[in-house]
Amino acid sequence: MDVKQMRAIVCDGVGEANVMRMTTLDVPAPFSSDAPQVLIRVRAAGINRPDLLQRAGLYAPPADASPLLGLEVAGEIVQVHGQTDWIVGDKVCALTHGGGYAEYVWADARQCLPVPAGWTMAQAASLPETLFTVWLNVFDRAYLGRGGAETLLVHAGASGIGVAAIQMAKALGNRVVVTLRQMNKAAVCHELGADEVVELNDHWAPTVLEKTSGKGVNVILDMLGTATAAGNMKALAQNGRLAWIAFLTGSKVEIKVHEVMGKQAQLTGAFLRPQSPDVKAKIAQDLRQNIWPHLDNRVIKPVVDRVFPMSEVIQAHEYMASNQHIGKLVLSWE
Amino acid sequence: MDVKQMRAIVCDGVGEANVMRMTTLDVPAPFSSDAPQVLIRVRAAGINRPDLLQRAGLYAPPADASPLLGLEVAGEIVQVHGQTDWIVGDKVCALTHGGGYAEYVWADARQCLPVPAGWTMAQAASLPETLFTVWLNVFDRAYLGRGGAETLLVHAGASGIGVAAIQMAKALGNRVVVTLRQMNKAAVCHELGADEVVELNDHWAPTVLEKTSGKGVNVILDMLGTATAAGNMKALAQNGRLAWIAFLTGSKVEIKVHEVMGKQAQLTGAFLRPQSPDVKAKIAQDLRQNIWPHLDNRVIKPVVDRVFPMSEVIQAHEYMASNQHIGKLVLSWE
Repeated sequence: MDVKQMRAIVCDGVGEANVMRMTTLDVPAPFSSDAPQVLIRVRAAGINRPDLLQRAGLYAPPADASPLLGLEVAGEIVQVHGQTDWIVGDKVCALTHGGGYAEYVWADARQCLPVPAGWTMAQAASLPETLFTVWLNVFDRAYLGRGGAETLLVHAGASGIGVAAIQMAKALGNRVVVTLRQMNKAAVCHELGADEVVELNDHWAPTVLEKTSGKGVNVILDMLGTATAAGNMKALAQNGRLAWIAFLTGSKVEIKVHEVMGKQAQLTGAFLRPQSPDVKAKIAQDLRQNIWPHLDNRVIKPVVDRVFPMSEVIQAHEYMASNQHIGKLVLSWE
Repeated sequence: MDVKQMRAIVCDGVGEANVMRMTTLDVPAPFSSDAPQVLIRVRAAGINRPDLLQRAGLYAPPADASPLLGLEVAGEIVQVHGQTDWIVGDKVCALTHGGGYAEYVWADARQCLPVPAGWTMAQAASLPETLFTVWLNVFDRAYLGRGGAETLLVHAGASGIGVAAIQMAKALGNRVVVTLRQMNKAAVCHELGADEVVELNDHWAPTVLEKTSGKGVNVILDMLGTATAAGNMKALAQNGRLAWIAFLTGSKVEIKVHEVMGKQAQLTGAFLRPQSPDVKAKIAQDLRQNIWPHLDNRVIKPVVDRVFPMSEVIQAHEYMASNQHIGKLVLSWE
């Protein structure tokens, strides 16, 4: 690889979407860790809520991460550093340690997965951040059953996380209930396999109980925080697990200890980004084994709302903030 | 067994301690379940906080339970019903389905354990409720390490639960930090093995962090609820687990989702009483294997503050409510 420079998106300080602009930077050097890593020529990069937070100055990247935005990409490997089975020319999607909004990015080799058969680069770029996040929280931390006996409730079912969680839980045999604020997104959730779609209004929790024969749901994937806290405790089944992955309506929640004890509930959650490379590598292995076959055979389908050219990154962030999309938004160099 | 009648404590309605009085009742029949069960001639019965709540009308017994107070006893088996290895004459302590404040009580045979070598009946009666509760919450639900690498924080370290939790965690090789409101109880906690004793004042959580080199504790056993909620989240280590077993200062707690996610904490808890007989039987097996050897060899010692004659049950309840005791209170027929 003899290219020395690349286009990339940088931020002039922190603030609204218009702090972002395209510029030319040196192609980065490998990061200093001993991990095997690959340089990817980026064809497409997924957009995630943490990108908007980081841009706004609300979510500082880890000290050892790229200061550039972008947590997931798809593209071809153009250089290999250290011991790995990947070779130059392999088409992969990868969880990155920042730096995805650029033409080239180094990724930990163990956090790369093959572009699924028949998926475009833009579709593949929509996968890593959501699939890793759902696996870590729903299947690892909240150990949703993989045999089909359990029910998962997904708030914001039409979000990028939502469409991934619905399909992953269904592919592994579970029942899925989703909530939505905008019921015009219900048809898509049903098409993706959601068994029940419930409007996120004042009586969503009793409705979920009705739709589960009064038993409640075994696992809840929550990114809302304050707004759903009281309802979550009503909607959880005995021995139910709640996994928080964000808190879009606020971080403060009021919990009643006797409700936790009465249901033997388990309240947990995790950020994906600060996980160690070893944890991320383990998630990648689990995804490859349990989820990748379902991507190759299209049991799990890409749900990309729009692909923006990288030059329209400002419009892309503004579009995500407007909450009109269903599924993922992706930036493309092509 | 040809005795037909027995003395027992009954309540005239619900209210203060003086609603209790001794009377004569028929010796109960076996309960209707298929479980193997034994009739125990009760020599001593432990007193627990749930007894005070039930007496006050704040904690209704399960529908299939004895309406009499008393969740744990020690005595001799006088009759056997169904298939069990226990025989008439065996000296046991048992978790009961209520009914312990009486001269005779039926207990599920699988919830009986031998009176440890050299322990009096009163000492043995102090064991089941606290040991089952601590095992269920600290070792099962919060999976405190048994290899010695972890630290347990026990609030109210001088309570009946506290003195059991300290000794069990130490016997299995862990480090133990306790909090106390009344620091005059600190010496006893240290004698029982507590590595650190911290006053439960406004800065208890930073103090716990100091005493754990800034890392925090892996598991917290909490029976206080509201008062300790904010501090608990500060004192928990990465991947820490919080188990609630009561909420003596109130059930409402305010939690910050970003703190749960940042630590990958797990908030959970359970009531012992509504657990199924199978779950209780499994706990008894685990206790017999992991804890009973430490009772027989006195690594874990009895901590009985006072033994009241059954005729002084009113004074015994009032004494527990006054919070002066260290360890357990027991009623005795002897």
